[in-house]
Amino acid sequence: MKFNTVLDDVVSYEAGKPIELVVREFGIDSKDVVKLASNENPYGTSPKVIKKLQEISNKAFLYPDDSFFELKDALASKFDVKSSNIIIGSGSDQILEFCVNSKCNDKSKVLMSQTTFAMYAIYSKLTGATILRTPSHEHNLDEFKELYKQKGADVIFLCLPNNPLGECLDTKDVYEFLDSIDSDTLVILDCAYGEYAKYKDKNKEIIAKDVITKYPNTIYLGTFSKAYALGGMRVGYGIANEEIIKVLHKLRPPFNISTLSLAAAIEALKDEKFVDECIAKNFEQMSRYEEFAKENSIKYIPSYTNFITYYMENHSSKDIANQLLQKGIIIRDLTSYGLNAIRITIGTNEQNNRFFETFSKIIKD
Amino acid sequence: MKFNTVLDDVVSYEAGKPIELVVREFGIDSKDVVKLASNENPYGTSPKVIKKLQEISNKAFLYPDDSFFELKDALASKFDVKSSNIIIGSGSDQILEFCVNSKCNDKSKVLMSQTTFAMYAIYSKLTGATILRTPSHEHNLDEFKELYKQKGADVIFLCLPNNPLGECLDTKDVYEFLDSIDSDTLVILDCAYGEYAKYKDKNKEIIAKDVITKYPNTIYLGTFSKAYALGGMRVGYGIANEEIIKVLHKLRPPFNISTLSLAAAIEALKDEKFVDECIAKNFEQMSRYEEFAKENSIKYIPSYTNFITYYMENHSSKDIANQLLQKGIIIRDLTSYGLNAIRITIGTNEQNNRFFETFSKIIKD
Repeated sequence: MKFNTVLDDVVSYEAGKPIELVVREFGIDSKDVVKLASNENPYGTSPKVIKKLQEISNKAFLYPDDSFFELKDALASKFDVKSSNIIIGSGSDQILEFCVNSKCNDKSKVLMSQTTFAMYAIYSKLTGATILRTPSHEHNLDEFKELYKQKGADVIFLCLPNNPLGECLDTKDVYEFLDSIDSDTLVILDCAYGEYAKYKDKNKEIIAKDVITKYPNTIYLGTFSKAYALGGMRVGYGIANEEIIKVLHKLRPPFNISTLSLAAAIEALKDEKFVDECIAKNFEQMSRYEEFAKENSIKYIPSYTNFITYYMENHSSKDIANQLLQKGIIIRDLTSYGLNAIRITIGTNEQNNRFFETFSKIIKD
Repeated sequence: MKFNTVLDDVVSYEAGKPIELVVREFGIDSKDVVKLASNENPYGTSPKVIKKLQEISNKAFLYPDDSFFELKDALASKFDVKSSNIIIGSGSDQILEFCVNSKCNDKSKVLMSQTTFAMYAIYSKLTGATILRTPSHEHNLDEFKELYKQKGADVIFLCLPNNPLGECLDTKDVYEFLDSIDSDTLVILDCAYGEYAKYKDKNKEIIAKDVITKYPNTIYLGTFSKAYALGGMRVGYGIANEEIIKVLHKLRPPFNISTLSLAAAIEALKDEKFVDECIAKNFEQMSRYEEFAKENSIKYIPSYTNFITYYMENHSSKDIANQLLQKGIIIRDLTSYGLNAIRITIGTNEQNNRFFETFSKIIKD
């Protein structure tokens, strides 16, 4: 059967390995598996959200309120915007897809950093668009400007902070960059890890209301998957001017988040204290990863997220990831990103102990 | 800002009104609202599934196993196919989207019945494809053949049974139709209500394994949203030959169903007794709707689903839907489908009592 030719070159996203796979393949008990591969919040879901989920599990047969009225209302209060400035997605991932599909076709150009979230390129390629990447792996705005000047772009992705590398641009530099971009270019500010970045350094905070007001060609993306500890529930949001939001809604399938996901997200917004505590613990544990790297002469990028990327020199990152996997520790090998590096989610104290202990042995072998 | 021009004509899907809206707009207590608008299973989620959801609600922070290994395995057993013949979607709705996006672009043609599930046309239009509809509202395979002969088609939708009308083609007629279709045309057999149809009449049963073996250009779609009582969890599946499934996977975003949805679907497959009981009760209650229609000289189509469509003659369906809404009863007005008709989900005995009582008063006014 013939299919659209754009599909010929598309390679699917390689998700972090699940605990179930390690149990199946290596016969390790699930409680002994340490998953530091997908940047979930290792402190688990807020007890208040768990209680809510248990209460409404008998509503699983009912479709959600497809207007997502209450969730948008809560987000509008949090971000001091109107509900009409908000779209809800199955993860912010789905909003990336809406954005690309609203702007791109086989004549389009999409600009991004050399190494950044893989779905940017996957969604773009599915439209037939041409991908432009900066030479540097980390975000370098001079290179972005230069490429934009030379070739133009319909969509620009900024990952703030950047997954899978962890670096983060200063907000003032982002603003200065936005000044140089044409009003018909959609700039996507992917702030999936934004809560972590602003905790570590106020200069990294992107204020959604300010940026969409000053630059009507931007969209701010946030998620419940990371700091809000709802990775499994698939809820993200986009904040932009009403014109953009209205168009993106044309691409939104009905009921794109589940009834339980909707309730969980609403409840999670009522428990910001839990989020703050998790972020504080994240950076306490992050310092252990920085110290470990220094002690073992491992090159790393200071991270504004809940993960850290270690560059390997004397070992293959793929081998290391495999050896860890066999010991029940799942981390992310970045070979598919063209890097001999591993990305480790910052876990709980105990999980990190397990990682350091096992990883030390492997690199000293 | 300029967007893709295909979006200019797209009108978003009008979802059934949620209970929350009636509570907000009319101040009716949520327990007094009767929702017969979205063809959910009115008997609620299986108690076994509710228990499972409560047990795993503390896993909401973890992404699901993106291979959906266990769910595919269970579906493969149920349908006697291989896991590699299966794709999981956020509702079977999402698989419709994958199918259309895999085959269609602005040069494509898509063939469907005059009145059928609205998302077929919405997803098709988003690719720029031309929509061909049969003159008859209900499925008429002679008209399908004639249009196909005249104009061709890249994708054909058969809704078996048909939403929102309720009629269902005989399987032998579907097979005979498939004999006349070119192997490069993808035929989508949307069996979202298939469990109801085969219970009422064995001649309507589409056996996934048989049809995909005999016709490698078909895909069978099923869902957990209707008989399996998981409308709010957003899980559907497609069964087709490996070549098709492999291509569709290129279009599948990672983690397209939630961790809780995955667990709920796996558990629901273990409780087929619950499903059978719900379907039996559905048709017991359906007979009340048929009797009511006859007593009140209302034209209706014999339905193979969990809903029934009443054609209005002396009243406007829109008015009736609004009057019912104000009394806390949500049904579906089919004005947007070009019909002066209402679609009512077959509820529980008590819900149907409420409907008949209120509806009688309105039509006798």
